[in-house]
Amino acid sequence: MMTLMSSQFQPVLERIAAEIERTPDRGRPADYIPALAACDPRTFGMAVAELDGTVYGVGDWREPFSTQSITKVFTLALDLAREGDELWEHVGREPSGNPFNSLVQLEYENGIPRNPFINAGALVVTDRLHSRTGDAAGELLSFLREESGNPALAFDEEVAASEAAHGDRNAALAHFMAAYGNIDNDIPVLLDQYFRQCSLRASCADLALATTFLARHGIRADGNRLLTLSQAKQINAIMLTCGTYDAAGDFAYRVGLPGKSGVGGGIIAVVPGRCTLCVWSPGLDERGNSVAGVAALDRFTTLTGVSVF
Amino acid sequence: MMTLMSSQFQPVLERIAAEIERTPDRGRPADYIPALAACDPRTFGMAVAELDGTVYGVGDWREPFSTQSITKVFTLALDLAREGDELWEHVGREPSGNPFNSLVQLEYENGIPRNPFINAGALVVTDRLHSRTGDAAGELLSFLREESGNPALAFDEEVAASEAAHGDRNAALAHFMAAYGNIDNDIPVLLDQYFRQCSLRASCADLALATTFLARHGIRADGNRLLTLSQAKQINAIMLTCGTYDAAGDFAYRVGLPGKSGVGGGIIAVVPGRCTLCVWSPGLDERGNSVAGVAALDRFTTLTGVSVF
Amino acid sequence: MMTLMSSQFQPVLERIAAEIERTPDRGRPADYIPALAACDPRTFGMAVAELDGTVYGVGDWREPFSTQSITKVFTLALDLAREGDELWEHVGREPSGNPFNSLVQLEYENGIPRNPFINAGALVVTDRLHSRTGDAAGELLSFLREESGNPALAFDEEVAASEAAHGDRNAALAHFMAAYGNIDNDIPVLLDQYFRQCSLRASCADLALATTFLARHGIRADGNRLLTLSQAKQINAIMLTCGTYDAAGDFAYRVGLPGKSGVGGGIIAVVPGRCTLCVWSPGLDERGNSVAGVAALDRFTTLTGVSVF
Amino acid sequence: MMTLMSSQFQPVLERIAAEIERTPDRGRPADYIPALAACDPRTFGMAVAELDGTVYGVGDWREPFSTQSITKVFTLALDLAREGDELWEHVGREPSGNPFNSLVQLEYENGIPRNPFINAGALVVTDRLHSRTGDAAGELLSFLREESGNPALAFDEEVAASEAAHGDRNAALAHFMAAYGNIDNDIPVLLDQYFRQCSLRASCADLALATTFLARHGIRADGNRLLTLSQAKQINAIMLTCGTYDAAGDFAYRVGLPGKSGVGGGIIAVVPGRCTLCVWSPGLDERGNSVAGVAALDRFTTLTGVSVF
Repeated sequence: MMTLMSSQFQPVLERIAAEIERTPDRGRPADYIPALAACDPRTFGMAVAELDGTVYGVGDWREPFSTQSITKVFTLALDLAREGDELWEHVGREPSGNPFNSLVQLEYENGIPRNPFINAGALVVTDRLHSRTGDAAGELLSFLREESGNPALAFDEEVAASEAAHGDRNAALAHFMAAYGNIDNDIPVLLDQYFRQCSLRASCADLALATTFLARHGIRADGNRLLTLSQAKQINAIMLTCGTYDAAGDFAYRVGLPGKSGVGGGIIAVVPGRCTLCVWSPGLDERGNSVAGVAALDRFTTLTGVSVF
Repeated sequence: MMTLMSSQFQPVLERIAAEIERTPDRGRPADYIPALAACDPRTFGMAVAELDGTVYGVGDWREPFSTQSITKVFTLALDLAREGDELWEHVGREPSGNPFNSLVQLEYENGIPRNPFINAGALVVTDRLHSRTGDAAGELLSFLREESGNPALAFDEEVAASEAAHGDRNAALAHFMAAYGNIDNDIPVLLDQYFRQCSLRASCADLALATTFLARHGIRADGNRLLTLSQAKQINAIMLTCGTYDAAGDFAYRVGLPGKSGVGGGIIAVVPGRCTLCVWSPGLDERGNSVAGVAALDRFTTLTGVSVF
Repeated sequence: MMTLMSSQFQPVLERIAAEIERTPDRGRPADYIPALAACDPRTFGMAVAELDGTVYGVGDWREPFSTQSITKVFTLALDLAREGDELWEHVGREPSGNPFNSLVQLEYENGIPRNPFINAGALVVTDRLHSRTGDAAGELLSFLREESGNPALAFDEEVAASEAAHGDRNAALAHFMAAYGNIDNDIPVLLDQYFRQCSLRASCADLALATTFLARHGIRADGNRLLTLSQAKQINAIMLTCGTYDAAGDFAYRVGLPGKSGVGGGIIAVVPGRCTLCVWSPGLDERGNSVAGVAALDRFTTLTGVSVF
Repeated sequence: MMTLMSSQFQPVLERIAAEIERTPDRGRPADYIPALAACDPRTFGMAVAELDGTVYGVGDWREPFSTQSITKVFTLALDLAREGDELWEHVGREPSGNPFNSLVQLEYENGIPRNPFINAGALVVTDRLHSRTGDAAGELLSFLREESGNPALAFDEEVAASEAAHGDRNAALAHFMAAYGNIDNDIPVLLDQYFRQCSLRASCADLALATTFLARHGIRADGNRLLTLSQAKQINAIMLTCGTYDAAGDFAYRVGLPGKSGVGGGIIAVVPGRCTLCVWSPGLDERGNSVAGVAALDRFTTLTGVSVF
């Protein structure tokens, strides 16, 4: 369905950046922690990575930003690679149909979160990866450094501390699931691991590269296999149905690609077998997704004809 | 991503049918109306239709069955073609995250159903198509006859009457949305239209053919355009995220194609730009999807490598 | 606990009326039907009836108003007298903890409404009384005429028609419960009976008198027993815990008497073994109870020391 | 309404004990912590305390048991006495209409618990009393020792430790409310205070005596006033509408007195202006109330004619 030449990526990105530049409404940065609230909503960067590691970019595409929930994709992949389908006894794969922090469905479904990308689900995945590795956050950091080829990637301890200081909802989720026997580690240890992961800083270029294993059906940058073909497809499926909070249907409708957003304003997306994208602009819509980010991905799929549909 | 030759479809279908034949557990037919309850759960049929109208099939693929919710796809397409994006002010595009008849989210969201494929959403779409055409069910029937090339397609008035006799939940949904001003027609008229649509009988061959306009990005069998390229992709996106009740995530994970199921045991699926599928087996799982149907589609995508991911 | 002399009732009522007169905020009349919206929120009437039928009153205490949900108490008593405890298999006795029309708990609890005073519960009670008498509304009217000694009491057909025209929520409730097998009559018949009951017009004097059987532990005005001692106490208990929508706790806290309000602005209250009260002022608070009515009952219990606590 | 002589209490209690003795079904003790699970469900004790401190009793009425949620009444009284109506900005007074630990309504109502007797509400009250006294549990213990005249009353540190070890749901509730700014103290400190209160051991005699301030309209055993007349009535009102989990309506219907139960199998009840009761039997019904306890109170009000209705 897609006949786009690689040489066309750069002009498409530049055209999109020019269009976004003329867009007045950029939404508002997340304001619950100072580091995010301070971001300029007019910042914009976008990168495309091909399967061979070639990266194209525009705007602030080499500028590190707070990845936040985007890391949930990588943590999921790292745990799924280790424990396989047993994971799915502890977290579901269905869209949540509710604002992303809701406790309602969690109660209704006995402490099993709907999917790995709502906070409750990511806490479970982190808990399980931590039990298997002794250092979930460290494992994530190593993986992202290797895939992006950027050894300078690091957690932002100040952001992690801010998150922890506003972490009562996540603590409530963790204790609630622990009451159902669905958390193994001590809650403070788990929360520390979780907030550090969220605090990771990386650029559009870093994240587009780090995501290519999902476009390569499970093969890492060094040629080794992290996931089976089936597992890679499955993560793409979960990204499409659950990757953008309560706007997954709208994202599939407009963009038509597996994607995952974060409240830092970043979004990653996968064109299976072809390339990956990462876009960043800190202004969010009311559902927590980057306004300019979604618009840019929408334009990219329209201009290039790329879509899984 | 897909290199399958058409000539391979028939052997793949036969292999799948043989595998399904050996599967003991087929689930249980829907039992809320006699006509469905009487179906033999071991019945199995499957068809593939290519873009040019060539159809391959196996088992009971020419046997008519009760399409039920599968018709929601066609009603949506017919209304969207007429009124365009205005429809989305009256029905959402997000997965429901709740059993398919739930009133909870409807109340929370002021009478706007989450998507066009839950019963509440299909009632709204039917209501709007009826207001625009004066005969929603008739419009649907004409369309399906023309696309399938089968002028014998018809509603099953006995099934429609059975549905009406057990129609209190749908009546409740309709009145509830009417209380929010989201229904235009009289409720008895609307329910009659709705239940007649659900009662339509068609075979796997008929439905696979009738669905090809979605694989052809909006072009009907006669070469005329029903939907824009963008609208066709959008319906595929909604099928992927919302097409199989509260198992849409699981369906995307296992099958990886836009699909829509009905409690009659049928499922249609779309491989955009390539072909469509329809499978039928009346035994359902606890979420209302055909057990053998999902298994057969799962095998098809595994054996052929077809997947949007 | 109560030593109030009957001769003190009249001065207490006059003092309360004077205080209410000086109160600027009276809330807003219900506006969903014209007949209620047209009421002057500054209207105020209050009556006390003693066990022997002596009535004291102040303000518009002889002016008929739309009783609305107040009639739910009498319909409950009439059905309970006939079928006894079997009724409680079809409707609960617990506070609803949710806005009065909510469908959520009804779904959670399989079509059994929480109590007889939410709309869903009153529909069930009406349905059952209708099955037993063939004319639930007529039964109610006869009873109220006899207890009040006022043969002029009548339904307001115009109000009943207005209610029916805005009756989609109640129709949804009725169909929803019918889907669970908890409604016996045809829905249009049931709704007609229900809306007619709600439309009954009566004055504070009429309603205070008609309620005295609950203060007399089940004995009607003519000396015959309608309810057992135990049943009369039970209805008082349900009025206290469920009689004022989602403000029952607050009403118990402030007034401390069994009571039942209606969106017409009326409230009845019972001092077991001593007297009954009825107050009317059409302006409502955000939970649907008369602002001046609750304030007047609060003052009455404070000034007289009457309270079940 | 009540003409019972004190001299009649003892024979009534003995008659009730004999009847209970013949009742085969006693329910099952709470089993989530060992100390409660080990209780013999056939244990039964009951006490009545008059306003002057005279106590009558039967069975194991002098045997200490785990008071659990019964202490919520005293903590509420101690905090309300200190801060007055400001408390009601942080906790509601409405029945919860949901199982006692539900998080749903808490989320719907922005972290303000429905009433002081669900766990969430008791955590808020404990938090506020602790902020005002520096030792909420110590304050409670002193009060109960003084009112009961039993200086041996003590917390059961083993039970408190068991509760803490199974305390994830309460921790979730506390963190959840903290996310809404409705908790002032550190969560571990608050939980320690809360679980210690629940662990208090006291007998029927102790608790009946300690409750008499509510029957005396706010006056303590030493003649000093803890609560205003109005506050005492208000706590009785909250006990009646919210004191027995999701069975408050049923308790009002059957017993007709303000009461508060605990999962240790105890229940206290108030006859305003007359006496108090405490009953204990560890076997619970499915809603968490003592089976024999409710039955005994039901018999007491039937035999004596005592009831607020």
